[in-house]
Amino acid sequence: MFSAILTVLLQVTAGASLAKMGAAIGAAIAAVGAGYGIGRIGSSAMEAIARQPEASGDIRSNMIVSAALIEGVCFFAVITCALVLFV
Amino acid sequence: MFSAILTVLLQVTAGASLAKMGAAIGAAIAAVGAGYGIGRIGSSAMEAIARQPEASGDIRSNMIVSAALIEGVCFFAVITCALVLFV
Amino acid sequence: MFSAILTVLLQVTAGASLAKMGAAIGAAIAAVGAGYGIGRIGSSAMEAIARQPEASGDIRSNMIVSAALIEGVCFFAVITCALVLFV
Amino acid sequence: MFSAILTVLLQVTAGASLAKMGAAIGAAIAAVGAGYGIGRIGSSAMEAIARQPEASGDIRSNMIVSAALIEGVCFFAVITCALVLFV
Amino acid sequence: MFSAILTVLLQVTAGASLAKMGAAIGAAIAAVGAGYGIGRIGSSAMEAIARQPEASGDIRSNMIVSAALIEGVCFFAVITCALVLFV
Repeated sequence: MFSAILTVLLQVTAGASLAKMGAAIGAAIAAVGAGYGIGRIGSSAMEAIARQPEASGDIRSNMIVSAALIEGVCFFAVITCALVLFV
Repeated sequence: MFSAILTVLLQVTAGASLAKMGAAIGAAIAAVGAGYGIGRIGSSAMEAIARQPEASGDIRSNMIVSAALIEGVCFFAVITCALVLFV
Repeated sequence: MFSAILTVLLQVTAGASLAKMGAAIGAAIAAVGAGYGIGRIGSSAMEAIARQPEASGDIRSNMIVSAALIEGVCFFAVITCALVLFV
Repeated sequence: MFSAILTVLLQVTAGASLAKMGAAIGAAIAAVGAGYGIGRIGSSAMEAIARQPEASGDIRSNMIVSAALIEGVCFFAVITCALVLFV
Repeated sequence: MFSAILTVLLQVTAGASLAKMGAAIGAAIAAVGAGYGIGRIGSSAMEAIARQPEASGDIRSNMIVSAALIEGVCFFAVITCALVLFV
């Protein structure tokens, strides 16, 4: 199957389409990373608040700090992928 | 079937189709990331409210914050994939 | 399969697209690494605060130290991937 | 298969793109290694502090020592990957 | 197979790019090995200190010895990979 896909590429002179495919799939994988990481933190935060409702201020601030760290790396990765389209 | 589909592609000179394929699959993978992450947060939020109904205000606001972080990355990834179609 | 992929590349004169594809996918994989690692630390931190709310100061500082170590490596990896686009 | 890969490479004059792809993906894999290792140590440290809050000083120093060992190897690997771009 | 690989390489004048790709990916895999091994040791050490805080001196020294053994091998592997770039 894949070989057939790529036999097609044979006639393609502008190979830039391969880079674009990589950019799209790369952005998507980075989004999955964010979804996994922040999802895990958020899920634990919900359960933690249910167990200790009076500690919800502490939990919220810690949740935002750690989620923001993931957000930073993932956003930068998506922007790198977007850069591929223009460089 | 797929091989037949792609045998056709063989005559397609405009290789931009590969980039478009990547865009479609990328958008889909990003949606899976959002689904996994927000699904996990939402699921824990439901159980947390069931265990501590009086903490539902706190849980709701935290759920929205963490889900919005995932939403941000995934949306940007899908937009990057959509950009592939036009650049 | 792979041979077909590369048979194609044969005619591609501008092989730079392969490097760009690698950069995009590389940045994405690094983001997944950050998501996994920081997600795990953050998730445990939430549960730890729920179990020992009075130790939340200690937990927060330790969470930030270990998450920052991951952040450092992952950011450097994403920047290396971004460098590929310009070097 | 591999022979076919290399038959292709024969005609590729600008083979540097392959090295760049390897550098990007290599840096990413190293970052995943750091994320996995430090993530695991940090996660256990959080739970350990929750179980023995009075041992948090010992736990913190040990966490930093073992995480720094991983950090060292991973950073050196990422730098090796970055070197590929310039050598 | 391997003979074919090398027959090909014979004609490759700019085959150095393949070696560079291997160096980058090799260094990355070595870093993953360090991350897995030291991560596992560190994780168990944290839990051990939480269970027996008064044995933390013993645990720390043993943790450092076993982690240093992994560190030694992995560092040497990464250096070997870096050497590929210059030899």
